[in-house]
Amino acid sequence: MTISANGVRTRPASADVAALTDRLRADFGDRVVTSQAVREQHGHGEGMADAALPDVVVFPQDNDEVAAIVRLCDAARIPVIAFGVGTSLEGHVAALYGGVCIDLSQMNRVLEVNADDLDCRVQAGVTREQLNAELKGTGLFFPIDPGANATLGGMASTRASGTNAVRYGTMRENVLGLTVVTPEGRIVRTGGRARKSSAGYDLTRLYVGAEGTLGVITELQLRLYGIPEAISAAVCQFPDLKSAVDTVIVAAQLGIPVARIELLDEAQMDACIRYSKLEGFAVRPTLFFEFHGTDVSVREQAATIQSLAADHGGSAFQWASAPEDRSKLWKARHNAYYATLALAPGKQAFATDACVPISRLTDCVMQTRADVAATGLVAPIVGHVGDGNFHLTILFDPADVDERAKAEELARRVSLRAIAMGGTCTGEHGIGVHKLDALVAEHGDAIALMQTIKRALDPHNIMNPGKTVPLPGNP
Amino acid sequence: MTISANGVRTRPASADVAALTDRLRADFGDRVVTSQAVREQHGHGEGMADAALPDVVVFPQDNDEVAAIVRLCDAARIPVIAFGVGTSLEGHVAALYGGVCIDLSQMNRVLEVNADDLDCRVQAGVTREQLNAELKGTGLFFPIDPGANATLGGMASTRASGTNAVRYGTMRENVLGLTVVTPEGRIVRTGGRARKSSAGYDLTRLYVGAEGTLGVITELQLRLYGIPEAISAAVCQFPDLKSAVDTVIVAAQLGIPVARIELLDEAQMDACIRYSKLEGFAVRPTLFFEFHGTDVSVREQAATIQSLAADHGGSAFQWASAPEDRSKLWKARHNAYYATLALAPGKQAFATDACVPISRLTDCVMQTRADVAATGLVAPIVGHVGDGNFHLTILFDPADVDERAKAEELARRVSLRAIAMGGTCTGEHGIGVHKLDALVAEHGDAIALMQTIKRALDPHNIMNPGKTVPLPGNP
Repeated sequence: MTISANGVRTRPASADVAALTDRLRADFGDRVVTSQAVREQHGHGEGMADAALPDVVVFPQDNDEVAAIVRLCDAARIPVIAFGVGTSLEGHVAALYGGVCIDLSQMNRVLEVNADDLDCRVQAGVTREQLNAELKGTGLFFPIDPGANATLGGMASTRASGTNAVRYGTMRENVLGLTVVTPEGRIVRTGGRARKSSAGYDLTRLYVGAEGTLGVITELQLRLYGIPEAISAAVCQFPDLKSAVDTVIVAAQLGIPVARIELLDEAQMDACIRYSKLEGFAVRPTLFFEFHGTDVSVREQAATIQSLAADHGGSAFQWASAPEDRSKLWKARHNAYYATLALAPGKQAFATDACVPISRLTDCVMQTRADVAATGLVAPIVGHVGDGNFHLTILFDPADVDERAKAEELARRVSLRAIAMGGTCTGEHGIGVHKLDALVAEHGDAIALMQTIKRALDPHNIMNPGKTVPLPGNP
Repeated sequence: MTISANGVRTRPASADVAALTDRLRADFGDRVVTSQAVREQHGHGEGMADAALPDVVVFPQDNDEVAAIVRLCDAARIPVIAFGVGTSLEGHVAALYGGVCIDLSQMNRVLEVNADDLDCRVQAGVTREQLNAELKGTGLFFPIDPGANATLGGMASTRASGTNAVRYGTMRENVLGLTVVTPEGRIVRTGGRARKSSAGYDLTRLYVGAEGTLGVITELQLRLYGIPEAISAAVCQFPDLKSAVDTVIVAAQLGIPVARIELLDEAQMDACIRYSKLEGFAVRPTLFFEFHGTDVSVREQAATIQSLAADHGGSAFQWASAPEDRSKLWKARHNAYYATLALAPGKQAFATDACVPISRLTDCVMQTRADVAATGLVAPIVGHVGDGNFHLTILFDPADVDERAKAEELARRVSLRAIAMGGTCTGEHGIGVHKLDALVAEHGDAIALMQTIKRALDPHNIMNPGKTVPLPGNP
């Protein structure tokens, strides 16, 4: 037996795993893989490289196959970890107690596009870039863009957002419904296709952000949007970080519906200029904007922002209105993480994810920058500042125990600072294994409700054990 | 003992209720009321008048008092029903098994307004009109407007929305966090003040729409919005219902950010013209629009809509740009329910609440209208059609058993029709006692997950028993 009475996890017995693997092979043939290379690939995401290998990786192709795998795991009390493309940043896919990794990459079909209703249904393994490629010609797009080409199932599971959230919201607002395989292996549909509903408990929102700890998301009904008539991007550089952040705060307070507002501090701008060969920019705190709307409204938004920026010492806008110029700009932004890694070959990096009420953003960013300076670590700032969210990308030498500890301590302080300011330790990356303490600091007594829900829906603690919600008795 | 082992409810023993009432009186004095008149007032909402009286009504003034009441009820296994101002439409406050009604009307303070962050914190008994009155002078407003001057706690509990939802979303999108008293009487805060968060399970969204069955909402952190620079309202009349609905569908598909789009069919328009003494309008299918934005964007939105309407045979817009003209228009819209009641003195009315994917709206409305005609009942159509939501207000004679049955049967068909079209039986009113069957038809296997959550969080089934989620063994 692998679990104590209250669902606290230990690693399953090898004999149980071997028996399950044989049984899976009988049903799934060579879609069951136990090679070291594949297990290693599935044992970690991006960010802090704390690999923990699953015992076996299975590649199902439909809901029924996922349900069949989960039922076998449930019967044997063996952990189940859902895996998309492995871009998560908080150790969500590490198989802390071994078990079965369900790789959803073969569930990659766009099942329906309802252009008239601005919605679609996809399998969980579809990536956001794939979806937008398949939407070409419909005049529609899916706006949530966390940078990485993540799967939509993974994005729902971590309640992802990214650069477009100011205008379009996060996965929370853009998932209409889900198909979920429960811990007992039942296939359940939540939500629906209506834009709003008051019918019963909001199971969709419960599974969005549950990080695979309550079941496996296998399909998603998503909202889509018409591609705006006009899109323009602009870059504005500032004499100092405070002026850039203050510009964002005023824009947010005025409710200007900018699609994206991204901040890069000097260090991040330096890294991006080198890595992405950006030309014509200074190594200075910088805001990237993108405006969506009609021609008239885009011009109006841009004029308002330009005037606000000028009030704060911002440079004249450098425009990127042609699609290829915009692509280059956003690609540089999306590659900020890799640009930072390239600053110090051999080092690793992980990201913090503070999100605060907008009025506290300048304080939070400036205090964090001073904190970074005091540590002597390299940690550029980049962020979706339009909704109060910013990241440090902290570089550290994995072989240097002290430096790693210092980096982790810095990250912990960033989380606690955001919480103290009425914000959250994670705007969009999730809790995973690294932020369980921060979750407790943030949510206090509400943790008990989360534990009750976890225990009720997953009584044997087989679903991504050790993540998202601390369970007493588990490490 | 009042409950069987699995939490199925029966009415508590009179001696237990008497003992609890004595105990409450000791703590709350004359804020404990058992008079018939007050119990009757608290035994029903609006809509179908199925009164079921609580044994006692208590008026707490803060979180601690609510928690103390709930702890006493929990110890005695006596039902707890939260009550705002009694405007719910699905029997949410009927005390099916007696028990203690917690009237939150004395918890009516706006606790903080953070103008810079566009948020506020209120006690659950604050009404939406009170909040907007207290926001005067800040340049901010709270947009969710279900018509009735409901409490914000009640609006969260039913996941309310109303006329502004197309642009601003529903209570789901506009509650940042809650204070909840759990069934054991613990005070828990969910969510926070950050615009987005991936920290743990989304308890806020679980309590929004839970209709008091998982705990009592005592405080809310709400999003606010800047009052738009420009607001204009316009009325457009159509030759037939289909043309009006088709206009809405195209507007929604184009993603035009109209703040409100309301449909009134001939019957509803007739009732409103008489009741609210509207002048200059014909008895015809009519759309009421409201546009929010900058001067430029309001003009642009209006021009686009006017052109769409003209394509569908719509009249020239009749404008209401002055605040007093807009108020008169929206007051007439909000009084549609009372206008309908005034058509047939002595009759009662209740509302259906279908919400469908926008492409099915014309089919759903036209089939429903034909269905109404076949029954011979009077049931005008009114709706927040911009997001696919519309209501029948069905009149019936409460003394006429056959007519009431016919009315209920019509309502049931409306729910099932919406569900068959991929929509929901309730866009904004909730399940209460009247739509438990429809919930099962809509959500099938997902009901088991809702039941598991209910049983886990409220194991003694004391929280608003008999509502929202069917529990086997309960009627």
